[in-house]
Amino acid sequence: MSYKNDLILRAARGEKTERTPIWMMRQAGRVLPEYREVRSKMKDFIEFVKTPERAAEVTIQPIDYFDVDAAIIFSDILTIPEAMGLPYEMVEKRGPIFPKTISAAADLKHVKVADAESDLGYVGEAIKITKKELDGRVPLIGFAGAPWTIFAYMIEGSGSKNFSKARAFLFQENKAAHQLMDMITESTIAYLKMQIRSGADMVQVFDSWAGVLSPALYTEFGMPYIQKICKAIPEVPVTVFAKGANWDFAELNELDCQVIGLDWNLKVDEVRKHIAGKTLQGNLDPAVLYAPDQEVVLHTQRMMRSFEGQPHIANLGHGLYPDLDRRKAKLFVETVKNYGK
Amino acid sequence: MSYKNDLILRAARGEKTERTPIWMMRQAGRVLPEYREVRSKMKDFIEFVKTPERAAEVTIQPIDYFDVDAAIIFSDILTIPEAMGLPYEMVEKRGPIFPKTISAAADLKHVKVADAESDLGYVGEAIKITKKELDGRVPLIGFAGAPWTIFAYMIEGSGSKNFSKARAFLFQENKAAHQLMDMITESTIAYLKMQIRSGADMVQVFDSWAGVLSPALYTEFGMPYIQKICKAIPEVPVTVFAKGANWDFAELNELDCQVIGLDWNLKVDEVRKHIAGKTLQGNLDPAVLYAPDQEVVLHTQRMMRSFEGQPHIANLGHGLYPDLDRRKAKLFVETVKNYGK
Repeated sequence: MSYKNDLILRAARGEKTERTPIWMMRQAGRVLPEYREVRSKMKDFIEFVKTPERAAEVTIQPIDYFDVDAAIIFSDILTIPEAMGLPYEMVEKRGPIFPKTISAAADLKHVKVADAESDLGYVGEAIKITKKELDGRVPLIGFAGAPWTIFAYMIEGSGSKNFSKARAFLFQENKAAHQLMDMITESTIAYLKMQIRSGADMVQVFDSWAGVLSPALYTEFGMPYIQKICKAIPEVPVTVFAKGANWDFAELNELDCQVIGLDWNLKVDEVRKHIAGKTLQGNLDPAVLYAPDQEVVLHTQRMMRSFEGQPHIANLGHGLYPDLDRRKAKLFVETVKNYGK
Repeated sequence: MSYKNDLILRAARGEKTERTPIWMMRQAGRVLPEYREVRSKMKDFIEFVKTPERAAEVTIQPIDYFDVDAAIIFSDILTIPEAMGLPYEMVEKRGPIFPKTISAAADLKHVKVADAESDLGYVGEAIKITKKELDGRVPLIGFAGAPWTIFAYMIEGSGSKNFSKARAFLFQENKAAHQLMDMITESTIAYLKMQIRSGADMVQVFDSWAGVLSPALYTEFGMPYIQKICKAIPEVPVTVFAKGANWDFAELNELDCQVIGLDWNLKVDEVRKHIAGKTLQGNLDPAVLYAPDQEVVLHTQRMMRSFEGQPHIANLGHGLYPDLDRRKAKLFVETVKNYGK
């Protein structure tokens, strides 16, 4: 298909672009009153995610308001554990809670490899509707959690500061851990391929909890499964965002992906020394968007400068905080678009 | 005074020692039934911290059970905000909650620089009792939170995944932020000096939330205040543990401290390239202590090997998790003591 704006796809492939494309993690969400309006009509978050028309609607809202260069499908990384047999509830102010978890090797019999079409068809449906309504304005990003992050929730059963239960499982049940990681990886590949068939133009893999693992554990349980996903998805550009895994960019550089997402807790110039032939995405500190306007502009320009000469997709170093003033986020977008003009 | 075992003091000064000394962050605590016994008799955690005889008692328990090479005074980093005018409650399963916080520059009038003797004398008292009861078996470590971490709690009012309120304050109230940071730093220096006068043989500064700041913010709000503390404490060795600030060890190396604490999310060989003339402390992944015995030994030996030839104090990369089997922690200690024999 042809796009009115395909900057992000060209930047992801490492091509020189007339300006740096930008989108924001969590751009669809509570910062937008239009989102809160739709959300208020839904029974709960999970019903929201499972209603394709509404998911498509909020996916497009940030394109209208922020005028960003990509949409990202409104969904949740925890659709995968659910599709594998572990449903969850989203509890206000607490986050996801899984009534049933994996706490021993024997519990693996309670989970299965997800069937992308029958278990996760609602995400494909949301993508199809979004693509139709976007009508080529900008490309659409699909996504999934990285296997370690999904695994961590399946064992821990909720968010956690340290995910110590999940990490204990890696040491106590090494074989079962790899088995479960394999099942998650297989489910994720099928899921992402289904998203691509439905119309996703590129995909991002979020390893939100990479940072709680030691480098040695990440080498054993993080990277190889992400690499399997990268190798299995030749169709579209793949972005890997391993939050907090800032100990070894040389290793991240070995991944067969096109884009590496960076959080805000690293020095861009240091990272760039280890990255070759990839596009970098990021990495403004989202807290900058609490600052006065002129500071927002200044910090954004400084961030842009740190990526100069590098294929780059501008973004925050993490998701938008829900209590931010959306006008600050818009100023961030505008500053990126005007940069270098 | 003379010690039966002063290994840790010599290692902290960079001297060659007959073996590597070891202690564990949170070695006094819930992993020990003797601790839980004392704890069960106290009204709450804060009363516990403020009862010098009981604090001294649990400070010595891990010396008896684990036979580690140092004691660390049982206390809490949040004694400082309290002494400055912001009391807190410790809520089971939730952590610290501050009923009153700093949310605007004007709130600074509600806090004062702590008077170490009158506001925090109970910690000095606990140190004196501990020293007497330890009777030279091992040195005693005093401690405080780093200014940024204390600041983060004073603004945020509780623990937080991102401390986004505290980070917002840095951008919105730059001048007031530096003023508060100055007050915290002054309070902390007086506090640590009082601990040393009371008998602490070395001190550790914990920057538990260093990792939520960008390198630029840490350069402005983290390092300079830690450096002020280091410069103000020539009396005893100072250890700086900036958890998650793994982006720039060259900068940490500039601190006028003797020991740098390392968490488990970094590559020791990479860090060592940037450190000269300092002792390193750490950094076993605490989750290793969930593993079968032979794995505990193997991972401990691997950790020890990574520090070979470097002045080193063995420790975990973070505090002991409360649900760990204390025998695993003891095996860790024994493995370190037997290493290289």
